[in-house]
Amino acid sequence: MSDAADPHAPIRAGIPEHGRVPKYFAVKTRLESVLDELGEGGLLPTERELAARFEVARETVRQALRELLIQGRVRRKGRGTVVAGPKLVQPLSTSSCTEGVRRQGRTPRRQLIALEQLDADPVLAGELRIGAGAPVWHMERVLLADDERVGLESTYLAVSRLPGLARDFAPDTSFYAFLREHLGVEPVSVDERIETVLATPREALLIGTPPALPMLLLHRSSRDANGEPLERVRSLYRGDRFSFTVHLDKKA
Amino acid sequence: MSDAADPHAPIRAGIPEHGRVPKYFAVKTRLESVLDELGEGGLLPTERELAARFEVARETVRQALRELLIQGRVRRKGRGTVVAGPKLVQPLSTSSCTEGVRRQGRTPRRQLIALEQLDADPVLAGELRIGAGAPVWHMERVLLADDERVGLESTYLAVSRLPGLARDFAPDTSFYAFLREHLGVEPVSVDERIETVLATPREALLIGTPPALPMLLLHRSSRDANGEPLERVRSLYRGDRFSFTVHLDKKA
Repeated sequence: MSDAADPHAPIRAGIPEHGRVPKYFAVKTRLESVLDELGEGGLLPTERELAARFEVARETVRQALRELLIQGRVRRKGRGTVVAGPKLVQPLSTSSCTEGVRRQGRTPRRQLIALEQLDADPVLAGELRIGAGAPVWHMERVLLADDERVGLESTYLAVSRLPGLARDFAPDTSFYAFLREHLGVEPVSVDERIETVLATPREALLIGTPPALPMLLLHRSSRDANGEPLERVRSLYRGDRFSFTVHLDKKA
Repeated sequence: MSDAADPHAPIRAGIPEHGRVPKYFAVKTRLESVLDELGEGGLLPTERELAARFEVARETVRQALRELLIQGRVRRKGRGTVVAGPKLVQPLSTSSCTEGVRRQGRTPRRQLIALEQLDADPVLAGELRIGAGAPVWHMERVLLADDERVGLESTYLAVSRLPGLARDFAPDTSFYAFLREHLGVEPVSVDERIETVLATPREALLIGTPPALPMLLLHRSSRDANGEPLERVRSLYRGDRFSFTVHLDKKA
């Protein structure tokens, strides 16, 4: 028997732990109760106070806080640390990438970093079904929820498909709404691959996260109603701020 | 123009980097070329040799190697470090969780850690549509690809649904095959949520990973053909060894 019936929590029951629980991890577990008591937005005691309360070295507290920060349980606010809100829950779908943000009562925004033409390398050219070396648009945008930077998105599509992109598109608006209105197309068939990666220093800088924070990386290839390749997207989301959901039905 | 047309790689082009690239990251980038040259299974030079070659401190090399290890680009082998193979690509589906392993020519295996009865807490009871405190099975298994431990899975289902589980089920076999043959049921409608988390010390021990390695965590709720809740599953996969794919079609 065990008290670990909550399937959302890590299972600590079952076979006993081999070896010792590291000290920082024991502190982290105790800190999690403190966070629950404080509630969202609550200000944590200082490292010094926590070290005194738990009778451990400050470095041990620091290591526990570092993990809680990486996992999005706490966040920095000014010079202090506060209890973070829950992760944004983002449904995977063919359409909006901002539905999860909206659903939680926040406003999705985008900030243009780069809009440029590149020569398609053979892999990208194959995916977009254009000749190798043919021009493609690369549009890179920071994704925001209200004023919080939560992700970084790079979209690639053939210039031949949308020659007027740089002229016609307002890069702080929805690209899919633009595609629908301007070209009358939208993604109807999408393949996605999800993995976890570490942010590079540049990405961490653009998204405003600690370097080497685990991120969720989505690779997306979409096709329009005619089966024509539409775009190739690389979206990086803060692992401490996002989770993704998907509904699956058994194929008949 | 830029040389960053490969959508699989992080984009380093676009606006110039603000600030300096950390030294360890420059070393990491150079190491990635070394890995490409060596190819899968190739043995890396020692830290000392790499430090001499790149004219940096050993600690700088160590930090670069640590990130490459977390990202699954290299792995430990005996006392050395070798170039790792590609991540396993696992399609999200209602049925097998081991399809990706099989597809890459490896044999999925499971190792039982715990099979026990718990009293359902209110959340779990609600999800399984049983009374709070009613008995549920908790089955925890390590998932393997051949002999490599790649994940840890906890399955919860109502004891009333399958009273003979402990007696009838061989826990090193496929649970879904057992459900099909024994109960004539299978998951036909599944909701999944994916996030990235850090392994706890116990999980790291069971899966045999470095502690605090980023993992992919899948929460799964499945229903049978009658719409009855079947199981609640918490699956943890090594973030350095797995990626997940899904195909999405626009809802009509």
